[in-house]
Amino acid sequence: MPGNSFGKQFRITSFGESHGGAVGCVIDGCPPGLEITEKDIQEELDRRRPGQSDITTPRKESDTIEILSGVFEGQTTGTPIALMANNKDARSADYEEMKDTYRPSHADYTYEQKYGLRDWRGGGRSSARETLARVAAGAVARKFLREKLGVDIVGCVSQVGTLTAEICPDTFTRAEVEATPIRCPDKTKAKEMISLIDAVRDEGDSLGGVVLCTARGVPVGLGEPVFDKLHADLAKAMVSINAVKGFEIGSGFSGVSLKGSEHNDPFELDDKGDVRASTNNAGGVLGGISSGETIYFRVAFKPTSTIQKEQSTVTSTKKKTTLAAKGRHDPCVLPRAVPIVEAMTALVLMDHYLRHRGQTGDG
Amino acid sequence: MPGNSFGKQFRITSFGESHGGAVGCVIDGCPPGLEITEKDIQEELDRRRPGQSDITTPRKESDTIEILSGVFEGQTTGTPIALMANNKDARSADYEEMKDTYRPSHADYTYEQKYGLRDWRGGGRSSARETLARVAAGAVARKFLREKLGVDIVGCVSQVGTLTAEICPDTFTRAEVEATPIRCPDKTKAKEMISLIDAVRDEGDSLGGVVLCTARGVPVGLGEPVFDKLHADLAKAMVSINAVKGFEIGSGFSGVSLKGSEHNDPFELDDKGDVRASTNNAGGVLGGISSGETIYFRVAFKPTSTIQKEQSTVTSTKKKTTLAAKGRHDPCVLPRAVPIVEAMTALVLMDHYLRHRGQTGDG
Amino acid sequence: MPGNSFGKQFRITSFGESHGGAVGCVIDGCPPGLEITEKDIQEELDRRRPGQSDITTPRKESDTIEILSGVFEGQTTGTPIALMANNKDARSADYEEMKDTYRPSHADYTYEQKYGLRDWRGGGRSSARETLARVAAGAVARKFLREKLGVDIVGCVSQVGTLTAEICPDTFTRAEVEATPIRCPDKTKAKEMISLIDAVRDEGDSLGGVVLCTARGVPVGLGEPVFDKLHADLAKAMVSINAVKGFEIGSGFSGVSLKGSEHNDPFELDDKGDVRASTNNAGGVLGGISSGETIYFRVAFKPTSTIQKEQSTVTSTKKKTTLAAKGRHDPCVLPRAVPIVEAMTALVLMDHYLRHRGQTGDG
Amino acid sequence: MPGNSFGKQFRITSFGESHGGAVGCVIDGCPPGLEITEKDIQEELDRRRPGQSDITTPRKESDTIEILSGVFEGQTTGTPIALMANNKDARSADYEEMKDTYRPSHADYTYEQKYGLRDWRGGGRSSARETLARVAAGAVARKFLREKLGVDIVGCVSQVGTLTAEICPDTFTRAEVEATPIRCPDKTKAKEMISLIDAVRDEGDSLGGVVLCTARGVPVGLGEPVFDKLHADLAKAMVSINAVKGFEIGSGFSGVSLKGSEHNDPFELDDKGDVRASTNNAGGVLGGISSGETIYFRVAFKPTSTIQKEQSTVTSTKKKTTLAAKGRHDPCVLPRAVPIVEAMTALVLMDHYLRHRGQTGDG
Repeated sequence: MPGNSFGKQFRITSFGESHGGAVGCVIDGCPPGLEITEKDIQEELDRRRPGQSDITTPRKESDTIEILSGVFEGQTTGTPIALMANNKDARSADYEEMKDTYRPSHADYTYEQKYGLRDWRGGGRSSARETLARVAAGAVARKFLREKLGVDIVGCVSQVGTLTAEICPDTFTRAEVEATPIRCPDKTKAKEMISLIDAVRDEGDSLGGVVLCTARGVPVGLGEPVFDKLHADLAKAMVSINAVKGFEIGSGFSGVSLKGSEHNDPFELDDKGDVRASTNNAGGVLGGISSGETIYFRVAFKPTSTIQKEQSTVTSTKKKTTLAAKGRHDPCVLPRAVPIVEAMTALVLMDHYLRHRGQTGDG
Repeated sequence: MPGNSFGKQFRITSFGESHGGAVGCVIDGCPPGLEITEKDIQEELDRRRPGQSDITTPRKESDTIEILSGVFEGQTTGTPIALMANNKDARSADYEEMKDTYRPSHADYTYEQKYGLRDWRGGGRSSARETLARVAAGAVARKFLREKLGVDIVGCVSQVGTLTAEICPDTFTRAEVEATPIRCPDKTKAKEMISLIDAVRDEGDSLGGVVLCTARGVPVGLGEPVFDKLHADLAKAMVSINAVKGFEIGSGFSGVSLKGSEHNDPFELDDKGDVRASTNNAGGVLGGISSGETIYFRVAFKPTSTIQKEQSTVTSTKKKTTLAAKGRHDPCVLPRAVPIVEAMTALVLMDHYLRHRGQTGDG
Repeated sequence: MPGNSFGKQFRITSFGESHGGAVGCVIDGCPPGLEITEKDIQEELDRRRPGQSDITTPRKESDTIEILSGVFEGQTTGTPIALMANNKDARSADYEEMKDTYRPSHADYTYEQKYGLRDWRGGGRSSARETLARVAAGAVARKFLREKLGVDIVGCVSQVGTLTAEICPDTFTRAEVEATPIRCPDKTKAKEMISLIDAVRDEGDSLGGVVLCTARGVPVGLGEPVFDKLHADLAKAMVSINAVKGFEIGSGFSGVSLKGSEHNDPFELDDKGDVRASTNNAGGVLGGISSGETIYFRVAFKPTSTIQKEQSTVTSTKKKTTLAAKGRHDPCVLPRAVPIVEAMTALVLMDHYLRHRGQTGDG
Repeated sequence: MPGNSFGKQFRITSFGESHGGAVGCVIDGCPPGLEITEKDIQEELDRRRPGQSDITTPRKESDTIEILSGVFEGQTTGTPIALMANNKDARSADYEEMKDTYRPSHADYTYEQKYGLRDWRGGGRSSARETLARVAAGAVARKFLREKLGVDIVGCVSQVGTLTAEICPDTFTRAEVEATPIRCPDKTKAKEMISLIDAVRDEGDSLGGVVLCTARGVPVGLGEPVFDKLHADLAKAMVSINAVKGFEIGSGFSGVSLKGSEHNDPFELDDKGDVRASTNNAGGVLGGISSGETIYFRVAFKPTSTIQKEQSTVTSTKKKTTLAAKGRHDPCVLPRAVPIVEAMTALVLMDHYLRHRGQTGDG
């Protein structure tokens, strides 16, 4: 199977370039009878949209979603749900320079080598505009998970550049996250992060950061033992997002320094006599299967590659040149990354829920 | 598709439990005409085998591989290659205690909840013995990649507990790696690591660590733009290995602290006039597609969950109890993890090579 | 994977209902560098379009295709090609009766039982309008196969009701097929078929028939040994088309009556010294793999289920009732079925060509 | 995905050649908690086994199945079930002639062209011995379908050469089928068929025939609307069996001659007030989804290609030659084909049951 589909039972197939006719996706395998409207989806898309705050790109993009199929009288019918947003007002002229010059740390060079040609307008298929389809499909999955299973997916920004916020995966709320444009629930750190972004933007430079994402209320039993471990699929989902360089679940890279006796999560019985883990270094997954504890993981985003500072590079005709981005770009993608990370989380959980229900009859 | 297969064009399907009849896998999609023998495979399996040195478990396991199909007169025929190792000398009695007690940070509890029953002997399907199939299949992929494309996959241990070695991804050799039982090419650090493992084992405790893996000589163009980015598939491959908690490519989590101007890899022309990157924070992948630079990434392994120290836990009949592992287990899985990480790397690259060749006709 | 995708390497994902926003599909895995325009696709769609002749439904449907992505400056880029036709002028009111009444031999009852609800407007997803996406995607595959491999796919109507034409699979041409509205290259039989259709339509009844399809110039080697035999995938492709009840390749059901000595196709050497079969009861496939001979097969279509004659049926509230279709429907789908059968043939061959090229490097 | 796997949720991956180490398969996705033993599987295999009666080949083959994994204390665990039969007593010498000579209407030529080499011993992967894996896996699916859903799958031989038996799909029993070695429930026709086979075998020639297969008690709702129609998957399953040239469901090719008013199956209400069809030309599937009526279809098998009569052919070094099979082969594969057709039916139904349960939560 080619690589523009994701998921096995709840499967999305994505299409579209930055400056083609449209971007969108087809969801195949959605359970019938889910109430869904364009408004449900638009709400999540607006969190991803460029131009939503001072610290994101002021570029205007149309993110207005249409449901083309698979929904009848407000409910999913079980047939494919096609979601599409037209591309409007795309000023290709702004990108003329990209036609012949390989932007450093972008996909221009590798696309051209792989395919022999590339749609250079706005990066074509490598544009982050592609994530619109992920967020749209994720909104459908998320609604199902919330309504049918009570699953709550909440992500936030926990690091920008060198500024790190300590955030407990079990307690921060979406309201706290949405309270600041940087989407960091620690208000003090949030202010510092915003100031840092402002400063770096003024230098014509950019910043990276980390998204912490959590899924609370996930039932025990989702995921499969070997290759399709729940966290392996989360890893793929996250690392497939533009600009992501790393993924860690639970204790992650820092857990490496602990001894087994410190790292293991002892089982205990809670007040209701149910099995619980007294710590959660595992991050909510044991042996690839959800344990009923909060799932939490961190996703590392590199600093935005498109910067206004001048950089050395080469052209497709193999000449040395320099490049400095024109126009205004995101100095830091982190706030817009939160809904994308959440959406991919919803897609993975939804897929594994349907798979689990199919195999075992549970749910 | 259920979760015991990996890869789309070079596809392995794995089977087997720790104490069932056999473990093995079926490789489907292997190119015809590759010369392969059981010896080629056994060589890699011996690096994964328990009991190979003082710092691994002294447990004896039969890792003798048989090729059951798909090879005729020493060459692959293009039909499925079934690889199998019988399970011998399995002393289930040693595991009686696991029957009713959930080992902390193991899969006993989640398997039982998911499936309603579990093969408790040696952890069943959750046993690391499953990785034998990965290494066996990886040996086939690796041979193809080396012989047909000149790809060289070399991994090593770069961290054990709190001990970190600085290793340049471009230069360390397999000979250096194999020179010490800990598989760390930095001889001084290797000694310290071994001492640390010895000490912690004597405490009845365990250690985690990090594997650094590199693939050199990978041609430009492997990987796909959106979901099946080359490093997304590497992330899934690695995080699907038992005990893995994190994955990072190139600059990874530490790259987050750099600014864009520091992190970007400028393009330049080399002596032959070919396009190269003058730095490699990307880790050899741009926009999901191999760039021709060395691919390198790090994989975090948690400390071994099975320890001799006493731990709190509960039974399947919901009673509190304690557990202390009997017998001898790996105090640190890192040295045995290196061939597993390398094998999964080979499977991902092989799969993407065949996919690329199919779509574009290149190669 | 849910069931709205077809193909493994050249993979289409279809969406859309008769009266929703649009119908279309996403092609994933198309080789880059293929020149394709909307005109190339429209040409095939016009052969499938309702209202193209006196013997098809006079219903007007918009089949105007848009390429939304994956094509840049007239060439495929290797990224997903989204194709879409808006649904216009749909008069749902015509279908009000279908809301509560199960049309005999239609999918109304089974959809409602499976999903708990159904989009009853025009049959929703079960409408033959879905085949628009197949023909559109098939046009892309077909162009590649013709230009790069010299493959020629030609189908025709060989039977309508009880009228059968004897047609040699190796020689009839597309020009002959397109010369009559019934798409039967035997002119005499064609006239009889048209008269028969006229008569049966006037009775308010309908007819079935058989499409004979051929693929000439297919290189030796496409297809796989066991489950994905080339003709097994053709069988699935054809039987997945609305109204199809049977598939046979080569000698088919009538070959059953021959003895082995009569049925076997002896090998011989042609003038160039190449291996050829002196007869072709096989239908161009041996052991699941194309042999280089003409591939030919027959597809049985049942008489159109929608008829103006009154029929007994029941309602969704479990009451007996009768139903007589209003408006004008196809009295015989055969002429419009030809381009659909050809399109599915192109999709199967294209998929197997890319798979073969990936595994073996041939091509 | 390469072509040696079948099914999406209940997925089998098959391996093995006629004269390699073993043949077998891995079942992935089986529900946990199904009681299964080697005896359950062996019973079906014995119906497929060579040498079971006077009208099949007297060749001895070991069909003794081993369960290598996925079953613990007599129950499936939800992890992969590996099934294997060793190849014993294979006398490769008998096949020396096949090394250089292409058997007419066999896969020797196409395999060699596709892969560049072939395992010529007994036909390698193209041998009918491959169907052993299908029957073994089918036995597991069948047991689940029977025990959990009450589905009854019964096939029979309805035609041998020119001899046709009229058999009602709703009433014939397995006991009647197993009562004669030809597996035709019409005793009079059965005798004639056996005499015909005896006569043709004595001529050194072979016969084809038709298997009629039925599935009774299949719940409404299995199958998907577009590409994965239930009968499309049945078509693929059947046509993928060695020697199959055609598939038809319900009225099939003969239904083509009826008018719509004759062919349509009116809905009615049965005594319980349930919706039923008063005729079943559909063959139990409407719009790709099971309707609750008996599913029945016919599968055409060509006459066995291996015959003792002398035939013209060529060698791999492109010389003309003749070939007459030595040893004893099946003069007619039909009786042994019945369990294979039934097994494939079970695999398709099982897969669609799990898919349906996953998407809708029904079942």
